[in-house]
Amino acid sequence: MLSEFDLIKRYFNRPRPGRATLGIGDDCALLAPAPGMQMAISTDMLVEGRHFFAGADARMLGHKCIAVNLSDLAAMGAKPVAFTLALALPAADPAWLEAFSGGLFALADAFDCELIGGDTTKGPLTICITVFGELAPGHALRRDAAKVGDDIWISGTLGDARLALACYWDDYALDPGPMAIAASRMHTPAPRVALGMALAAGPLAHAAIDISDGLVGDLGHILAASQVGATLAVDALPAGPVLGAQDLNLRRRFCAAGGDDYELCFTAPAANRAAIVAAALAAGTAVTRVGSIDAEPGLRLVDGGGTLVSMGLAGFDHFAS
Amino acid sequence: MLSEFDLIKRYFNRPRPGRATLGIGDDCALLAPAPGMQMAISTDMLVEGRHFFAGADARMLGHKCIAVNLSDLAAMGAKPVAFTLALALPAADPAWLEAFSGGLFALADAFDCELIGGDTTKGPLTICITVFGELAPGHALRRDAAKVGDDIWISGTLGDARLALACYWDDYALDPGPMAIAASRMHTPAPRVALGMALAAGPLAHAAIDISDGLVGDLGHILAASQVGATLAVDALPAGPVLGAQDLNLRRRFCAAGGDDYELCFTAPAANRAAIVAAALAAGTAVTRVGSIDAEPGLRLVDGGGTLVSMGLAGFDHFAS
Repeated sequence: MLSEFDLIKRYFNRPRPGRATLGIGDDCALLAPAPGMQMAISTDMLVEGRHFFAGADARMLGHKCIAVNLSDLAAMGAKPVAFTLALALPAADPAWLEAFSGGLFALADAFDCELIGGDTTKGPLTICITVFGELAPGHALRRDAAKVGDDIWISGTLGDARLALACYWDDYALDPGPMAIAASRMHTPAPRVALGMALAAGPLAHAAIDISDGLVGDLGHILAASQVGATLAVDALPAGPVLGAQDLNLRRRFCAAGGDDYELCFTAPAANRAAIVAAALAAGTAVTRVGSIDAEPGLRLVDGGGTLVSMGLAGFDHFAS
Repeated sequence: MLSEFDLIKRYFNRPRPGRATLGIGDDCALLAPAPGMQMAISTDMLVEGRHFFAGADARMLGHKCIAVNLSDLAAMGAKPVAFTLALALPAADPAWLEAFSGGLFALADAFDCELIGGDTTKGPLTICITVFGELAPGHALRRDAAKVGDDIWISGTLGDARLALACYWDDYALDPGPMAIAASRMHTPAPRVALGMALAAGPLAHAAIDISDGLVGDLGHILAASQVGATLAVDALPAGPVLGAQDLNLRRRFCAAGGDDYELCFTAPAANRAAIVAAALAAGTAVTRVGSIDAEPGLRLVDGGGTLVSMGLAGFDHFAS
């Protein structure tokens, strides 16, 4: 049996040149933002049976844990710097730890995001990551910054992760090929860090949020914080490649209120359209214009003819289900 | 039933002037250390049935969760600034949340430590706090900084928390009065923040650690990181008022390897003895000199006559039990 300290050393204590003045192995890590910069901080807790299935593939789980945190940095426009990892494990299983840490570090390293500290304990499988990014003062893409007349944009595509979940729940069925594509969207989301940084640095965008609980619910947070309303062209929402081949009602529903998309929803002045498309191209992330911010409170979904579509949608609430 | 968002608002979203540029309610919080200062960062995860009993008093639990994190800042000598809270709850119980947040904020407010963000989800009761402190570069009390010839000091008293645990486990029995005193040490530890800050600011001390897994194990981390050894006068260890009235063997054992003490163990040059006693007085925390750092590797416990005492002690390992 590995001891707690051996376990930390073997899988998580990697000697690499980093930003932290002092990293793993002391009471605290020491970190300083570059002179004049702010730190953006976000924390997420993932619980087995809630955010992922019992027995989930450990490598993909490692990827997803850090991906959802990097997605929060992307939604502020911050550059990833470092993270801490707190891990409750039923047992110290070397094969699981090797796969989990492999998936975690593969994505963290791709964004030069360094593990600087953490905690491990025995308990029901629970993963809590706190991530640190850097941002110039005044450049954050805040939820309360949407302006009437702004375009609403979505990065990438929506709904394939939700479609995979429906299949796992036996609410829907896909052939193995499409299912593999949809499942990869659910298990290994790609945080839109480069796009978020470009939108903040411009600055090209006003407000942004990452879509984790479904577009309607998450955009709703922007509307509430900014005290504005919005109109979305529901059939302009960019469905994922698998969802795009399904029927209209399902497409609308899972695009508008899927969850687990980890795409950015952002608002920006119409004058920035060309610059946003260019920045998205440079970031390697497609963007789609899907609506506009209105003075009238509330969120309206309209079809191609401008007719209101009533769908009775809500964002995901962890305590309602 | 409270929704996740109502719950966050009602119990955790407190409008108060703070250090964060942007706090709860966005994808990230924004925080900057004062110009020229470093951030000290620590994360701890507490799991029901592991770090606290199922059904533990929610107010005391709130206190303890933030106390153990503030204790990590104290052990680096950092000034508390802010924290994030990730919370998995079996259900959104208003009475529990009111008591928990009450205990949490009472202690956090006492140290001017602001809640800047978090995450709540349904799951087995698990609390993960990441705490942020501020420290002048070069002033951190690191584990690798002990020097041969240093005195070893302990703040406060040791062992009463472990004695309470022995009683909860029915391994020992105390009368109700002493049990209440011992139990309060276990449930509501006092982080030694003012003392840690004074030791770092002097600088008066070289190395420090907070005693969470037992003195022998935790001092062992200093010895390993600093590549030194130590001799402890086992009967000079400051037993808590309840443990102090028990027999010699129990006193020695729970002082040396109790756990849950949250006192500071630090090393300092002999030339600083008077200044350390004065700083401790100003911080309102007793300190006791209990041994010295040696060139010879290993940790030796000796009695009043200088004779080696063999106790077969080890620090607490979350995966060994």
